[in-house]
Amino acid sequence: MTVVVLAAGKGTRMQSDLPKVLHPLAGRPLIGHVLAAADSLGPDGICVVYGHGGETLPKTVGRADLAWALQEPQLGTGHAVQQAMPHVDPAGDVLILYGDVPLIRPDTLAEMVMIAREGALALLTVELADPAGYGRIVRNARGQVEAIVEHKDADPEQLAIREVNTGILCLPAAKLAAWLARLSNDNAQGEYYLTDVIAMAAGEGERILPCHPAAEWEVLGVNSRAQLAGLERRLQATIADALMAAGVTLVDPARLDVRGRLECGRDCLIDVNCVFEGHVVLGDNVKVGANCVIRDAVLGDGVEVKAFCHLDGAKIGAQAIIGPYARLRPGTALAEAVHIGNFVELKNAQVGYNSKINHLSYVGDASVGARVNIGAGTITCNYDGVNKHRTVIEDEAFIGSDTQLVAPVTVGRGATLGAGTTLTKDAPAEQLTLSRAKQLTMPGWKRPVKRPK
Amino acid sequence: MTVVVLAAGKGTRMQSDLPKVLHPLAGRPLIGHVLAAADSLGPDGICVVYGHGGETLPKTVGRADLAWALQEPQLGTGHAVQQAMPHVDPAGDVLILYGDVPLIRPDTLAEMVMIAREGALALLTVELADPAGYGRIVRNARGQVEAIVEHKDADPEQLAIREVNTGILCLPAAKLAAWLARLSNDNAQGEYYLTDVIAMAAGEGERILPCHPAAEWEVLGVNSRAQLAGLERRLQATIADALMAAGVTLVDPARLDVRGRLECGRDCLIDVNCVFEGHVVLGDNVKVGANCVIRDAVLGDGVEVKAFCHLDGAKIGAQAIIGPYARLRPGTALAEAVHIGNFVELKNAQVGYNSKINHLSYVGDASVGARVNIGAGTITCNYDGVNKHRTVIEDEAFIGSDTQLVAPVTVGRGATLGAGTTLTKDAPAEQLTLSRAKQLTMPGWKRPVKRPK
Amino acid sequence: MTVVVLAAGKGTRMQSDLPKVLHPLAGRPLIGHVLAAADSLGPDGICVVYGHGGETLPKTVGRADLAWALQEPQLGTGHAVQQAMPHVDPAGDVLILYGDVPLIRPDTLAEMVMIAREGALALLTVELADPAGYGRIVRNARGQVEAIVEHKDADPEQLAIREVNTGILCLPAAKLAAWLARLSNDNAQGEYYLTDVIAMAAGEGERILPCHPAAEWEVLGVNSRAQLAGLERRLQATIADALMAAGVTLVDPARLDVRGRLECGRDCLIDVNCVFEGHVVLGDNVKVGANCVIRDAVLGDGVEVKAFCHLDGAKIGAQAIIGPYARLRPGTALAEAVHIGNFVELKNAQVGYNSKINHLSYVGDASVGARVNIGAGTITCNYDGVNKHRTVIEDEAFIGSDTQLVAPVTVGRGATLGAGTTLTKDAPAEQLTLSRAKQLTMPGWKRPVKRPK
Repeated sequence: MTVVVLAAGKGTRMQSDLPKVLHPLAGRPLIGHVLAAADSLGPDGICVVYGHGGETLPKTVGRADLAWALQEPQLGTGHAVQQAMPHVDPAGDVLILYGDVPLIRPDTLAEMVMIAREGALALLTVELADPAGYGRIVRNARGQVEAIVEHKDADPEQLAIREVNTGILCLPAAKLAAWLARLSNDNAQGEYYLTDVIAMAAGEGERILPCHPAAEWEVLGVNSRAQLAGLERRLQATIADALMAAGVTLVDPARLDVRGRLECGRDCLIDVNCVFEGHVVLGDNVKVGANCVIRDAVLGDGVEVKAFCHLDGAKIGAQAIIGPYARLRPGTALAEAVHIGNFVELKNAQVGYNSKINHLSYVGDASVGARVNIGAGTITCNYDGVNKHRTVIEDEAFIGSDTQLVAPVTVGRGATLGAGTTLTKDAPAEQLTLSRAKQLTMPGWKRPVKRPK
Repeated sequence: MTVVVLAAGKGTRMQSDLPKVLHPLAGRPLIGHVLAAADSLGPDGICVVYGHGGETLPKTVGRADLAWALQEPQLGTGHAVQQAMPHVDPAGDVLILYGDVPLIRPDTLAEMVMIAREGALALLTVELADPAGYGRIVRNARGQVEAIVEHKDADPEQLAIREVNTGILCLPAAKLAAWLARLSNDNAQGEYYLTDVIAMAAGEGERILPCHPAAEWEVLGVNSRAQLAGLERRLQATIADALMAAGVTLVDPARLDVRGRLECGRDCLIDVNCVFEGHVVLGDNVKVGANCVIRDAVLGDGVEVKAFCHLDGAKIGAQAIIGPYARLRPGTALAEAVHIGNFVELKNAQVGYNSKINHLSYVGDASVGARVNIGAGTITCNYDGVNKHRTVIEDEAFIGSDTQLVAPVTVGRGATLGAGTTLTKDAPAEQLTLSRAKQLTMPGWKRPVKRPK
Repeated sequence: MTVVVLAAGKGTRMQSDLPKVLHPLAGRPLIGHVLAAADSLGPDGICVVYGHGGETLPKTVGRADLAWALQEPQLGTGHAVQQAMPHVDPAGDVLILYGDVPLIRPDTLAEMVMIAREGALALLTVELADPAGYGRIVRNARGQVEAIVEHKDADPEQLAIREVNTGILCLPAAKLAAWLARLSNDNAQGEYYLTDVIAMAAGEGERILPCHPAAEWEVLGVNSRAQLAGLERRLQATIADALMAAGVTLVDPARLDVRGRLECGRDCLIDVNCVFEGHVVLGDNVKVGANCVIRDAVLGDGVEVKAFCHLDGAKIGAQAIIGPYARLRPGTALAEAVHIGNFVELKNAQVGYNSKINHLSYVGDASVGARVNIGAGTITCNYDGVNKHRTVIEDEAFIGSDTQLVAPVTVGRGATLGAGTTLTKDAPAEQLTLSRAKQLTMPGWKRPVKRPK
């Protein structure tokens, strides 16, 4: 079986320089959703028909396993499928999908594939409350599909039909090829319509078996940014429902955004207005506070992330307490029970068991041991303008506030650094190290006076 | 009158290790809402029937004034009420509530209590748009309740009835006891149903007076996280409506979360996406910016809190200006007209009239006088690794930027500290105190060169 | 043509000390929206009838080009218009608007003005799903308006009419004056009703031509904070729709707030929960992350603003990367490709091409050259307690971490400052300058021990 994905259209109403099917939905291009659905069927091949936007589409998708068929000029959906036929095994079946209809579910498609395998034409249709503009499915007295009548050609009785064509179909390749060869562009638009294939099938008495999606949104397409936003919310609602069914408390399901994959353990709570991107894994009993942005992160059991945190590429041990206003950047790895407080930035830093960096610090390119206390305003000077260097802080060290650790430098086990120290050489274990000018009071000094304007 | 709260159920669909009635709604366990409604009636006693989750429920609720009846095994709602009867005064009335039906309003219950006091059975019923699955209220020609017919036993005419049983009832204890004693478990589930009590009452010609909640959501139960989220939004909408009716401007009522008690003075404005927890009091003309999280705080008249603030356990004087990105932790007490700026953390700190801490500072365990200016990057070094110490800054002091105040230490009235000072001894009043190394320029120094990889 | 805006009402249900028409909608007083609609028609004059709240209204609106008519006492809408008539050219037309009906569209009004110009009375009516409480538009067999019947006076047939009076009308001033002179207050409220004017017009066989708004929300008034919030959301939805139609991706249109004017280039993306105030201009391909607050700012092409930024009065060059948690205050001007990172505050600071201020810094009253690197924890000490001074950092300087630049001070081109330096004198170009105490380790020092409580 070959999947053909039509993705050549311009999407004028998107008002965009980006090919329509590359617009993101839940953080992934529209066509990425369609290809994922196609992949899930285990097809022999997938061929994407592209056109508008030129090579941007194949380059951005960047999958070597796909076949690409250029449709240039674009003469209709039938013409689009024709371009794909060289990539289709004539002995197999063909499933036709659309790059701008992203939410189609694999289960829906699997049913269609089964039907085509038995030689029939599987046609996906849907009942719409308002079918205006769509091709109506005309059935005979026995309920068999007889024709698809375009809205503009429909008589009053046909206009009353609410079952419409979605354009998604699955059928034997050989039959499709034969019908495609007979398509005509003798119509107002001068285009070759894939719909005519169904009319031919009906005319020849072929079996046309309609399938239905579980929900109308599976077959909704994106022609405008408003429709894109509509599907985004629809998809997010689906994701939220699945999380809740699996036992996650969402304080407001309408204020959750998951762009990628969010795995949650038992009894997690996600407060309002959080955004998850990439692959995020939460252990059991994780609590994520309001307004957090979390990307590609693993949070152990019992982790508490307070409001306003920004985590990216971080691994956080069990029972850690993070934030509020903590920013963890890629390469952050926190052991169990670590505390990271407000206005703290970590980057490429490993922090050991129960260590604390609670206030206003930058710790980058650093290895921090266990039970270390890093005072407010501590900065690892990891960059000399051209090279990055590492800071090592061993177990149980105490770093006084407002200390600069000029890397490469090591603070020995159990060492203490005085507040305000600029550490340029290693600090020995168990000792107090500092750099400090004598405190002086200047006799007779007067405060500055207000400058005349 | 005794209130019996049924709270023994497992709540399988919650997918949780926490007993269902302990799941939080607006920051308080479901059962906490029910108990508050019960308390408001001034009952002689409240008995909670518990079971699944064992002693977790009594322990977590932690109220010595409640009676607890263990239902083990759990053989139906009638059986549950039976367990409570030893705690019920036979001469009084019984009101039966459900631990997972949290939004029942005291007014609704008070009406039921009045009815029971007159010897009748008060039954709370509600008209549902979709009554599928619920027991229908069958009335006779005079409108009297004749029976409750379970959905599966209802004939087509009965299925068309939209008035359903909520399970909430209030009746004389003696009658209840008699009917409970006659309950049978001779049914498909092998359970003792409380509903059968109503059938007995009807059968004996007892007066059954239906009451109705003011809104359907009063009687909605929680069986899943999705239902929990639904009630959370419903309750938040109610809270938002009440705030607006009292004269608070909510820029988006759908993006407000109040988990506890929010009292507002006249003409307050709350911007989008704010969360209030615990007990928060806003004076007149308070403005809270977007995305703030405020817990257990008192804000005086005219306070402006800018976006992204996180306030907890703070008392803020009139006309203060806070944030953006200010974090006030417990023990913060600000006098009038104080300014706290961005990336500033205060903890257990008292700040006097019109003092300013505008940038990137940590002030903890400190007393700051009036008209003090604390420069950017100031840090009170309040922790020596084992003990906390206080910093005192007297009126009109000027703390230069990036200063560390190594507590215990005092800065005298009108003192000035030079930028970058590490203050380890008290700074005398009115003088300039600093610790500063001489500025040097190193001749011939070359910048580092890029390391080969 | 003169526009009369009725704005004397108290708005009791607002529970406010602020005159109702001064309550903000999308960041602008209600009456500001109405005046903007009036202005768009290019009228000869605008007269606002005020009363409750006294001079607060004229003072706050502060427009010298408006006429103000005090209505005191307030004896009904007809009486209100009477107060305005001295400001109306009797040879022209009058358009009557309401200060608390803010979303009326200029197109709707322009149609009414055209009708009045031809001598007829243009009456704005609207079909409501639920017309309860409104005056019904009674038409004769030819569809002409015959009368307006108040709800309480309507017979069952009239009650079934869903077309209602909005109160907005436009008519020749001379006719209006004549009818106003004949108004009576012989009714239950003892008030002079503007509606009676329409009855008189109908009674005299005048042509009354009903006009309709494009949407019902155009004629919705504000009588409570709930209604204010409803219109806020309605207006925001309209703004969001327009942005999407113009090619902006909104991840959630329901979580966007625009209070002023937001201009967007091609292919911008605005993530959830952003607030725009004042006049904000985004170039092409700008990406604004979640939870940003942006006021009066210009962002060049390709700028990326990460989550949690707060921008006010800033100009940002193309390809700059801002945030997360960056705060740019008024006077900030960033050249192309500047990077501003987390917990960084800029105020009145100009930053040159490709310079970087990535962590925990305060840069105020400063000129920063191109390709400068400013380390974490850098602070410009711009304030001496009474005066502000400037810091100049020339091209390619490297500012070590935790440095204080005590202004006025200049760092020469290509200079390097050592970490922790307090710079009080100019740093020469190309050299390393620092102030640093010698690093010492104290032999025999012991950590403090836990104090007994």
